[in-house]
Amino acid sequence: MKPMIFSLPGNEGLADALAGRLGGERGKAIVRRFPDGESYARIESSVEGRAVILCCTLDRPDEKVLPLLFLAATAKDLGAARAGLVAPYLAYMRQDRRFEPGEGITSVYFARLLSGTVDWLVTVDPHLHRRASLSEIYPIPTRVIHAAPLISRWIRENIASPVLIGPDSESAQWVSEIAAVAGAPYLVLEKIRRGDREVEVSVPETDRWRSYTPVLVDDIISTGRTMIETVGHLRRAGLAKPVCIGIHAIFADRAEEDLREAGASRVVTCNTIPHPSNGIDLGDLLAEEVRNVEGAA
Amino acid sequence: MKPMIFSLPGNEGLADALAGRLGGERGKAIVRRFPDGESYARIESSVEGRAVILCCTLDRPDEKVLPLLFLAATAKDLGAARAGLVAPYLAYMRQDRRFEPGEGITSVYFARLLSGTVDWLVTVDPHLHRRASLSEIYPIPTRVIHAAPLISRWIRENIASPVLIGPDSESAQWVSEIAAVAGAPYLVLEKIRRGDREVEVSVPETDRWRSYTPVLVDDIISTGRTMIETVGHLRRAGLAKPVCIGIHAIFADRAEEDLREAGASRVVTCNTIPHPSNGIDLGDLLAEEVRNVEGAA
Repeated sequence: MKPMIFSLPGNEGLADALAGRLGGERGKAIVRRFPDGESYARIESSVEGRAVILCCTLDRPDEKVLPLLFLAATAKDLGAARAGLVAPYLAYMRQDRRFEPGEGITSVYFARLLSGTVDWLVTVDPHLHRRASLSEIYPIPTRVIHAAPLISRWIRENIASPVLIGPDSESAQWVSEIAAVAGAPYLVLEKIRRGDREVEVSVPETDRWRSYTPVLVDDIISTGRTMIETVGHLRRAGLAKPVCIGIHAIFADRAEEDLREAGASRVVTCNTIPHPSNGIDLGDLLAEEVRNVEGAA
Repeated sequence: MKPMIFSLPGNEGLADALAGRLGGERGKAIVRRFPDGESYARIESSVEGRAVILCCTLDRPDEKVLPLLFLAATAKDLGAARAGLVAPYLAYMRQDRRFEPGEGITSVYFARLLSGTVDWLVTVDPHLHRRASLSEIYPIPTRVIHAAPLISRWIRENIASPVLIGPDSESAQWVSEIAAVAGAPYLVLEKIRRGDREVEVSVPETDRWRSYTPVLVDDIISTGRTMIETVGHLRRAGLAKPVCIGIHAIFADRAEEDLREAGASRVVTCNTIPHPSNGIDLGDLLAEEVRNVEGAA
């Protein structure tokens, strides 16, 4: 039987895209909030014996978690064979160890909560810093999609003379890979320490890059501070207005406006979090991994 | 060793009250939200080997649950002997069965979530309709406090000539019990059906009650619709402006203003949810039950 695909509020586009690509059926569910702030969940389609796929990207996760877990639990109560989760943006990946004494390792607690109700997870480029893979914290089957190849393709197809920018030496590897696939050069900014507190950021071989369009790439644009600073360095060095690309469009506070005001000519993101800046569609890759994980289930 | 008591944001008064009564220590914790909407939890006091008590009333529960569960998990990660929860208002008690096909039984799912991390639960008058006790849905030890005796005492001490009002026949038993302990009379409104759709509510023996102060009591004042209607019936019958008492001060939307505009002379609640209307203090009862459940742990 074909899987039945449900969207949590705001994820209708993702659910439609997956249903189309997987030949799945769109399930009908009601998820709403009562006046007292509690959530209500009801599944109107018959899910008995069927594979259920829930679509819910997890930016601003705190208020989304109960409705999501309630819908998954309801599906299983109603006899669904299993309930998988497609969360193109996965929350709580940053706190993956105790940086200060007494801190909660929320990535582990969050993984435990989701895994208690959901049977598998498909996501896009989770913020894995100190972990080699999601399976270190998620006991359920997980599949991870990498957006880099599609970002490279977007750059190749949309920017005439791009130069990829690495804001610091840490980013060199990731930026060089995207640049290679895009067939574009890249440069890494240099931090020069002047005295105890002053750090100057310089753009090497400035003259060489004046006719190029700088392209900045980051995984998450949240407050956008690092990217905004980098845009400033490039502009002060006399380079063209850069294009800023993010995988996950969190855009906390005024991040997008600030980025444009700093001098970004364009802000483009992947469609892991619905946002007007979404310009790179990951639907095919998501559908492929859902097919894989469902096939293995 | 004395228990260590932590407050989630907004529950500082409850934590202080319990610490004073139990001779417990107030623990230091940081719970805050990042700009991207994720929560951060850190315990600054040493909890190793100690009983931890978390104070978190659960009105508007969806955004409170992750910080609460994270703090409980952190305490246990840091070696706490156990982590109990004092939630004077317990959320998700209404959806205790499938009223319509396909509905999620959220009271059970919510109980499962809390019980996965928290070791015991103390609450006040949970909205138990079709369940005999909390233990039918909560696998962890639970203790329930009943506010009725303190409401009766408040009425006896604050209202000169009270008459308790039952808005319908279903409420008769509960209202008669409070009235008996308050040493006050009570009356139950009558619904008279006129034709198919029209229902008239009448106040029996109106003349007898004109010099009394009507007192309305309900467990939860959420939108306050029932109470507002009842206030209207009493006013139209020519009775004095009533006093409205609730255990749990949810006050969704404009409930409190609407209640006063309908003709309530006073709105008084127990302090299970911090609110300016709190006039009945349950601190002693809460401390007693925490002592009991901790003693049994």
